[in-house]
Amino acid sequence: MTKRIITISREFGSGGRTIGREVAARLGIPCYDQEIIDEIAEKSGLARDYISEHGEYVSSAGWWGSLLGSRDYYGNSPQDTLWSIQSRVILDLAEKGPCVIVGRCADHLLKGKADCLTVFIHASLEKRAERIVHVYGESSEAPEKRLRDKDRRRKAYYQMYTDTEWGLAANYDLALDSGTLGIESCVDIIAGLF
Amino acid sequence: MTKRIITISREFGSGGRTIGREVAARLGIPCYDQEIIDEIAEKSGLARDYISEHGEYVSSAGWWGSLLGSRDYYGNSPQDTLWSIQSRVILDLAEKGPCVIVGRCADHLLKGKADCLTVFIHASLEKRAERIVHVYGESSEAPEKRLRDKDRRRKAYYQMYTDTEWGLAANYDLALDSGTLGIESCVDIIAGLF
Repeated sequence: MTKRIITISREFGSGGRTIGREVAARLGIPCYDQEIIDEIAEKSGLARDYISEHGEYVSSAGWWGSLLGSRDYYGNSPQDTLWSIQSRVILDLAEKGPCVIVGRCADHLLKGKADCLTVFIHASLEKRAERIVHVYGESSEAPEKRLRDKDRRRKAYYQMYTDTEWGLAANYDLALDSGTLGIESCVDIIAGLF
Repeated sequence: MTKRIITISREFGSGGRTIGREVAARLGIPCYDQEIIDEIAEKSGLARDYISEHGEYVSSAGWWGSLLGSRDYYGNSPQDTLWSIQSRVILDLAEKGPCVIVGRCADHLLKGKADCLTVFIHASLEKRAERIVHVYGESSEAPEKRLRDKDRRRKAYYQMYTDTEWGLAANYDLALDSGTLGIESCVDIIAGLF
């Protein structure tokens, strides 16, 4: 099976970004993650922090916050504008050639438009809590609480812009538990399918 | 990673049973599927057809049918009794040694009780429709209608006895789309992880 593009959707703290980078390195193709933020920043004038936070998560003020936030003449919130630019950037990157794209609903955006292998990486709350403390260090907030908040907001974002439930196996060619299988096994499986 | 038992949950028509048998053959371990029905029949006196139909699906009369059906002194329906015997049979099989167990909520039953690799096999409605016509032949009912009915009843059964949503990636170590990846790739990935 030859697939041109690999999209990696992931739960926060599951190591999906690391897996994406390692798969890309092994296959000798680019991995787009931070690069997407840079490209959007250049095209939109939005700040990198804003893009990073609002391109995958609903606002921490939740649905009401999104509804009550500022809107342009056409009724679009700044997050809607970001979604539209982000979508364009991802579709353009996919035109360039084989690559790995991490997050940002790329699986949904490229459905039927490119030859994709769509991957979902998840892990238990315990395993992810261990990982975020290890990778990002301690914070004043308990890691489980940070994860639950991130999960809830990413899930809502995905639902809002794709009208599909987040985390359903049926939405992906491949869904892997990086906590039980290990990062290395996940990389082997994905790279082996390309 | 060494896992003693592989459980395969699958959507009807996804080829999960075939994948289970091929994985077991390649690893030289038993695959329990029809054997579970034989064992339950022996232990319970229930007919094989009844076990086959009611051990993975809610009655076609649905929830109301289950509620209104006959109950024993303790309020258990025949399906509850079947669930209890089936659970015992699966836990006993898991004690015997490395094996593949297909369907029947084995993933849920063995959670925390055995060293398991839990797998979910799914495919699009179109791919599954093609497959069931190829494997089981034509029927008076459209294949898509048969599949939707089977999906609905299997999902309700899983929910009723495990109190967990069917088809969520997070419930499995590995979820594979047999329609896009192909049966052979699925077998390779699963056998490679054992």
